[in-house]
Amino acid sequence: MIHAHNYNHQIEQAELVAVCDPNEAAAKKAANLLKLTTYYTTYQEALSNDTIDAVIIACPTKFHKDIAVAAANAKKHIFCEKPMAMNTEECDEMIEAAERNHVKLQIGFMRRFDESFQTAKEMVDAGEVGDVVLVKSLTRGPSKPQEWMYDISISNGPLGEVNSHDIDTMRWFSGSEFKTLFAVGGNFRNKEVKDRYPDFYDNVVMNGVFENGVLGSLDGAQYVQYGYDARVEILGTEGIITIGDIHETTVLSCAKNHSVKRPARKSWTNLFKDAYLAEAVSFVKCILNDTLPKATGMDGKMAVHIVDKGNESLKTGTVIQLGEGIH
Amino acid sequence: MIHAHNYNHQIEQAELVAVCDPNEAAAKKAANLLKLTTYYTTYQEALSNDTIDAVIIACPTKFHKDIAVAAANAKKHIFCEKPMAMNTEECDEMIEAAERNHVKLQIGFMRRFDESFQTAKEMVDAGEVGDVVLVKSLTRGPSKPQEWMYDISISNGPLGEVNSHDIDTMRWFSGSEFKTLFAVGGNFRNKEVKDRYPDFYDNVVMNGVFENGVLGSLDGAQYVQYGYDARVEILGTEGIITIGDIHETTVLSCAKNHSVKRPARKSWTNLFKDAYLAEAVSFVKCILNDTLPKATGMDGKMAVHIVDKGNESLKTGTVIQLGEGIH
Amino acid sequence: MIHAHNYNHQIEQAELVAVCDPNEAAAKKAANLLKLTTYYTTYQEALSNDTIDAVIIACPTKFHKDIAVAAANAKKHIFCEKPMAMNTEECDEMIEAAERNHVKLQIGFMRRFDESFQTAKEMVDAGEVGDVVLVKSLTRGPSKPQEWMYDISISNGPLGEVNSHDIDTMRWFSGSEFKTLFAVGGNFRNKEVKDRYPDFYDNVVMNGVFENGVLGSLDGAQYVQYGYDARVEILGTEGIITIGDIHETTVLSCAKNHSVKRPARKSWTNLFKDAYLAEAVSFVKCILNDTLPKATGMDGKMAVHIVDKGNESLKTGTVIQLGEGIH
Amino acid sequence: MIHAHNYNHQIEQAELVAVCDPNEAAAKKAANLLKLTTYYTTYQEALSNDTIDAVIIACPTKFHKDIAVAAANAKKHIFCEKPMAMNTEECDEMIEAAERNHVKLQIGFMRRFDESFQTAKEMVDAGEVGDVVLVKSLTRGPSKPQEWMYDISISNGPLGEVNSHDIDTMRWFSGSEFKTLFAVGGNFRNKEVKDRYPDFYDNVVMNGVFENGVLGSLDGAQYVQYGYDARVEILGTEGIITIGDIHETTVLSCAKNHSVKRPARKSWTNLFKDAYLAEAVSFVKCILNDTLPKATGMDGKMAVHIVDKGNESLKTGTVIQLGEGIH
Repeated sequence: MIHAHNYNHQIEQAELVAVCDPNEAAAKKAANLLKLTTYYTTYQEALSNDTIDAVIIACPTKFHKDIAVAAANAKKHIFCEKPMAMNTEECDEMIEAAERNHVKLQIGFMRRFDESFQTAKEMVDAGEVGDVVLVKSLTRGPSKPQEWMYDISISNGPLGEVNSHDIDTMRWFSGSEFKTLFAVGGNFRNKEVKDRYPDFYDNVVMNGVFENGVLGSLDGAQYVQYGYDARVEILGTEGIITIGDIHETTVLSCAKNHSVKRPARKSWTNLFKDAYLAEAVSFVKCILNDTLPKATGMDGKMAVHIVDKGNESLKTGTVIQLGEGIH
Repeated sequence: MIHAHNYNHQIEQAELVAVCDPNEAAAKKAANLLKLTTYYTTYQEALSNDTIDAVIIACPTKFHKDIAVAAANAKKHIFCEKPMAMNTEECDEMIEAAERNHVKLQIGFMRRFDESFQTAKEMVDAGEVGDVVLVKSLTRGPSKPQEWMYDISISNGPLGEVNSHDIDTMRWFSGSEFKTLFAVGGNFRNKEVKDRYPDFYDNVVMNGVFENGVLGSLDGAQYVQYGYDARVEILGTEGIITIGDIHETTVLSCAKNHSVKRPARKSWTNLFKDAYLAEAVSFVKCILNDTLPKATGMDGKMAVHIVDKGNESLKTGTVIQLGEGIH
Repeated sequence: MIHAHNYNHQIEQAELVAVCDPNEAAAKKAANLLKLTTYYTTYQEALSNDTIDAVIIACPTKFHKDIAVAAANAKKHIFCEKPMAMNTEECDEMIEAAERNHVKLQIGFMRRFDESFQTAKEMVDAGEVGDVVLVKSLTRGPSKPQEWMYDISISNGPLGEVNSHDIDTMRWFSGSEFKTLFAVGGNFRNKEVKDRYPDFYDNVVMNGVFENGVLGSLDGAQYVQYGYDARVEILGTEGIITIGDIHETTVLSCAKNHSVKRPARKSWTNLFKDAYLAEAVSFVKCILNDTLPKATGMDGKMAVHIVDKGNESLKTGTVIQLGEGIH
Repeated sequence: MIHAHNYNHQIEQAELVAVCDPNEAAAKKAANLLKLTTYYTTYQEALSNDTIDAVIIACPTKFHKDIAVAAANAKKHIFCEKPMAMNTEECDEMIEAAERNHVKLQIGFMRRFDESFQTAKEMVDAGEVGDVVLVKSLTRGPSKPQEWMYDISISNGPLGEVNSHDIDTMRWFSGSEFKTLFAVGGNFRNKEVKDRYPDFYDNVVMNGVFENGVLGSLDGAQYVQYGYDARVEILGTEGIITIGDIHETTVLSCAKNHSVKRPARKSWTNLFKDAYLAEAVSFVKCILNDTLPKATGMDGKMAVHIVDKGNESLKTGTVIQLGEGIH
């Protein structure tokens, strides 16, 4: 609902028209909460509403492609949450449909709109740390995975669930595409499911080289318990930039136990709240000004591709060479 | 407009009905921006609208009292920005009018609603640092004072313009009222107005003792140029709590110049954005649940009183003893 | 013994010759520990040793004056720990004796030799934050006061025991002398001695104005329990500088309790270890190069004076005006 | 000379007897500086001195093995700087000679003696972050490599010159040995030597898996220019620990440019000064108490081994599987 709330009154040049959910009770409840008069239970109905210019796709990944293609054919601009689709073939269909129908297709990499990420990108582009040498990015979530996530043929594991953003960040800051990669991982915090899900990993480290020679390294984890942790480090030829703190708010305390303490960040919602709104504003602007979205279908597709290849590396224990034909 | 935007769609149980500004063009423009159909150019008209349950007073201080008393008499609940009024007599009139008419009167000390301040208060109340010994609070603003602020008979100087919040914070964390105070100050950054405004000071330090023995110290400054700085430190018998960072966002960089850098905080708007919304939510709740506002008329009055006495200390160079009769 | 260890082999151009302690067992033990062949039990004997060029006085304050004057008369250079003496008259005698005998007299304000303090001073002198407006300095110690400290006619209270360094820091950064001051305090952590020592305070806040208009504020505390805390903040017309962290070492952790933790600083020894050595090196250099010590007898005397006047303000509850004749 | 200064008077139960350097002028100069009466120009002479119980080997790596073996045969305890030797065969010879002669052999991994590293290790061992999942360690040096370092057949590149410590840290915190590893790198800051030294890399990232399943990732860099940077992060099943700050000293400033600044760490000398002394104390203790050194010959050998294998991975672009026979 974070998108719905942002588009509902917080963006001057946009108006939230309707919500759509196959579960009618859920659709009705959302509409009430948002004080909307219209809701739909099929995306086909929603797409037939001529007053709608654009759609936000935030349903399970397996439905993304069909809805996006239908939306494109109905000449609606498309904002689609990440992961973009189940595989790169679906991504290609979505990209092709959007291009053919001359509609925008933006993927939900909201970190690109976060003030800290943007400041860092401007600094890198201004050459403040020289040429980029190495991009490191990590995301670690506090929550126990839900049952369906253990089946990585469905969830794609932490690489897909958690690190899609890191992959996008690495591509964004390196300005290039992965050329080789190697991933290692293991199941450390969910050992009770090892028998049932032998392929499941809850921690991963992946490094690689980009086509332009820049080095990359990411790590991802689920159920870390200590908090939500998302940090980036960009090492250049002449300096570094880091993004992210582990702590939240500005309170610090120190009592008899002789520990200086700050509250840890408990979730991503507060951290990226402003970024989600900026992302929505940017989407509306790119429609109105007919400019390229700041996170394109190709960005979405490449993240899907790298998750696949990372999982392949994990499974085979080998270095993966990425063909240049993909992008 | 920060209040208007918050009440306009972001608070479930409240609805923004109208805006009021004696300048019709301004009133019209604000109404358009907020997509409101109603605007007023006199507060009397606004108060005669029966569908209005509560008013937000955010005009210049000298009009606060008249509007608040009229609002109370019209049985409207009142949220009034700080400084509450020009002097404690006006504050008394406002408090009395609200009480007589059984309406809520909340003063705009939004820091009490900031997540960091609230966490700190909960820790203090839970005894995590023992008994409170000393409360320090500082606020320093980046901007050059406007011409009218140099006349401290009108502006009350930085103590009124900048430190009202610190005075409230000190009262809040000490749980008591100032008993003695002493202030020193000077004009350091606006020397070109020294001839015309010999009483003007742009920097002040004030310390004192509360009735319960707790010690207090604040400092305030205008036109500091390096950024917006608001920090608090609570020293207890067994520990400390600090609130506030000088830097903003989570970006950190280090390049050839061998300095580790973080962007400084440029303004209060971003820092307290969430606090303003929480303040509004709390005001609506105290009306609906008929509870005491978290920042009362008495809180507003005491801040006005302490600003007066601080300025008296600055002028006379003496320690001021505060009578207990005031509160 | 920190001085003895520093002078014993760590300073190229100095050699530790002997130790002196009226308790022979203690003198012998120290000599053994330091692998020295010589020790004395009276300072008169020590001063009669012609191979000795300089003395370090680190005994209880009440003996400082007699030893220093005798050392000066014996043409020994003098390093004397702070507080310099029991009162300003004694300080004057020491200064006069050193001047008459053309020997150096350096007082143990080692913070002036700390790398962070020195960096800050260089930045201030280079005008990096404009003109100095306000100097804040605090020192808080973790330990329960020893019995004799409760009698402030002997110990001078925390102002003397803890804040002498802060007073020196404020004079150093303001480049001026206190003109007015006002102190408030109380006994918050040693309530069991209130009956026996009604004048004792374990927490103090003192603010004031320097002769050049610069503002100052310090706070001091004993038995804070959370750690050793020494921090300084210099506010200029165009920026700020802060010195000091609450945490120690570079370890940070965050576990299930959702607190980001760093170990607190437990004592001053580690914090100022390098400063003590640099102080000793500087003392040796000022003798060899015949230059002015970086912390002179006048610096020692003014700290004694301000402690006196701060205690007078605490006792009388009034603002103290400091005469210019003292310095 | 850091070792010589530490053993010279700073360690109670040790005495520095002599220095040894094939260059007589250098040996003489060092002896003078250290106020020693004895110096040698061949290690054979030095080893024939019966009053010597232990030797510190801090010469170029290629001489380590011969000197260490001779020292062991002369029944001297051995402290040897890292890298331990030119290859694992030499390491084996050194270990075997020490064992056969019943002398201690300690390798110079001083980070194990750093207070922050030790605190972190104690926390890990106490289970404060659960089981170890991932150990990340990085070291980046500010200086331009010297000419001879470009030939990685001699220098072993940054992996050997810079990351030996990180490899040791990862082994120490994982409590295990590398099982697989993969490294990527490049020459980013020394492009002018690319023709002459095509194999040279000044930046490397290496990840891997330990035999107990723990994941590891390191990065190393030379000539980063922004400062000296050494940081570690240990991710456990229930929390994290980080070691290391980029900044040095406790000064922070913020002026008109709106950047909050702290000085960057310029070199490793100050950072690990105390660790070097603690390392020496520990070496003396393990001799006196006949205990195992805290960094053994096997620790030295494994670092040499992993550097070799990391360079092999860089050269072949493949994942390296490490045999278990090596340790």
